[in-house]
Amino acid sequence: MTISDIALRAGVSIGAVSFALNGRKGVSEETRERVLKIANELGWAPASAARSLAEARTETFGMVLARDPRNLGVESFYMQFLAGLEVELARRSYGLLLQVVPSRADELAAMEKWRRSRRVDGVLLVDVAMNDPRIALSAEPGALPALVVADPSVAGGLPCVWTDDATSLREAVRYLAGLGHSEIVRVAGLDSLAHTRIRDDAFLDEARHLGLDVAILRTDYSPESGASATRRALTSATRPTAFVYDNDVMAVAGLTTAMELGLRVPDDVSIVAWDDSVLCEHTFPKLTALSHDVVAFGSHVARRLFDVVDGTGSGAFLDSTPKLTVRGSTGPPPRADARASAR
Amino acid sequence: MTISDIALRAGVSIGAVSFALNGRKGVSEETRERVLKIANELGWAPASAARSLAEARTETFGMVLARDPRNLGVESFYMQFLAGLEVELARRSYGLLLQVVPSRADELAAMEKWRRSRRVDGVLLVDVAMNDPRIALSAEPGALPALVVADPSVAGGLPCVWTDDATSLREAVRYLAGLGHSEIVRVAGLDSLAHTRIRDDAFLDEARHLGLDVAILRTDYSPESGASATRRALTSATRPTAFVYDNDVMAVAGLTTAMELGLRVPDDVSIVAWDDSVLCEHTFPKLTALSHDVVAFGSHVARRLFDVVDGTGSGAFLDSTPKLTVRGSTGPPPRADARASAR
Repeated sequence: MTISDIALRAGVSIGAVSFALNGRKGVSEETRERVLKIANELGWAPASAARSLAEARTETFGMVLARDPRNLGVESFYMQFLAGLEVELARRSYGLLLQVVPSRADELAAMEKWRRSRRVDGVLLVDVAMNDPRIALSAEPGALPALVVADPSVAGGLPCVWTDDATSLREAVRYLAGLGHSEIVRVAGLDSLAHTRIRDDAFLDEARHLGLDVAILRTDYSPESGASATRRALTSATRPTAFVYDNDVMAVAGLTTAMELGLRVPDDVSIVAWDDSVLCEHTFPKLTALSHDVVAFGSHVARRLFDVVDGTGSGAFLDSTPKLTVRGSTGPPPRADARASAR
Repeated sequence: MTISDIALRAGVSIGAVSFALNGRKGVSEETRERVLKIANELGWAPASAARSLAEARTETFGMVLARDPRNLGVESFYMQFLAGLEVELARRSYGLLLQVVPSRADELAAMEKWRRSRRVDGVLLVDVAMNDPRIALSAEPGALPALVVADPSVAGGLPCVWTDDATSLREAVRYLAGLGHSEIVRVAGLDSLAHTRIRDDAFLDEARHLGLDVAILRTDYSPESGASATRRALTSATRPTAFVYDNDVMAVAGLTTAMELGLRVPDDVSIVAWDDSVLCEHTFPKLTALSHDVVAFGSHVARRLFDVVDGTGSGAFLDSTPKLTVRGSTGPPPRADARASAR
């Protein structure tokens, strides 16, 4: 007889049983009464149940990342996201168990190991791919409570927290079109990731709607790949006048590349970065960027995972939508005659 | 009777007992035989001992950070350090339990909780302060195996991995003096941290030796504080001609500040950053920086902690010394008459 049996019989999570038995907030009165009744029926005194629970609760959330760990230190996104998670976890004395694995298959194996050993109270699914096998695994009976950090369209009905990236990208494209740009390049991230596809679709659809001439160049998020995509576009016969980058370090690399080619920003080329950061505020000129409070996003995600573990969180939760912050790296495109002579 | 009893009687860590009983590498033949003999004397069949061990081993290392989690996302250092730790941890299917706490007192409490619950196999002590109470705690009998990431002078005899920051800072100062700079400002981090004091001392000592006119300005590592220190120095009556910053984001903020004041880098002001990063390679001009492979440093630290947990790691291990990478942000100081007219 374990605490899991109470949870199973009451139809709630282990976390909810814990809250109920310990008299803490986070479960409804109705749940609390059902749990206490079942515990009583099973011959569990609240004290001994609570004692057992203290062992059952790990006070830890887990996150597996299938990435080359060497690339983790480059972008500011994950460190800010971690910072936001920790703001909320620190409040409840929770830790974050972070495991980096070399492949998607290892990601599943790590999650399965955590499930068997109950090493964590819940897991976060990030870097969600199209048809991600972790979603199916997390929907199985006995799976660890999971929160998906991705669009509801790829969350398979699991609780999720998402940002409306499509709306943000459309705002950036409309802003550039409003300045007069008609040739815009999107320097995009990995197309295996669901959010890249969503941004791609919004970019192409908005461009079609506005009659713009656009292209998508693929990168791996590294500054090297951002610089190389920028150079390729700026030295092509049909030089674009504006770029939208999928992260901050690629936008900074693009700015440097344009300057190295003797082009002025924003007089010759306009630059928009996704994931506004301190970096964007300290280049010269400063970068126009899609600003999202990633620290607050991480905290929001942590709070929703606490709800999921407590058996009270289900549904899709929309985080704040990244908004365009206009700075010095964007302006009207050069006049057509100036562009022709510059070629 | 627990596995700890075998470890205690054999005078090795629980990890070493695990390695010995599981026939894995990482303990000497002599240790393996001693452990097997003791396990046998205590009536432990290797199989049941191994089974118990599977529960005893957490396959997790712990790191507590006493910081405002909101500041974690700003510097590249910690994300690169984490990336390096994960390179090594991923190889052995270990996870990293990261807990952020609001104060130094909470740091001790979190470590004490981990010790009681044996939630991690070992801990890393980072952001080491002068007379850090965690050092004493970790030297007590029954403490979790610990590795100190700091200079041996503050590690209290515990195993440590360190970088020779004094030599690096002296190199930067000598390089600037060699270019002709005699008025240099160090924009330094928190003086409660041991490595800040070590850098301060080296800076002042080298400057005295070379007869330079120097100052140290204190910051909290944020780009705002770096910008503000730079502005204060550049608008003072005795405008310095060179700056050495304690991290990359402050150096970038300093570069922007100099440009905003109408000064040219490096013609009017030279800039050196500590913690070379992709950021330093993509500003305009690119930043001269003290380069340290922080990812490799993190991996080195993780390997040494595995040794400590296995009972085979003691001593002070010197990591590679950060070396100066000269880029476009440093050059000779302006001529005295040019400086006078610019004031």
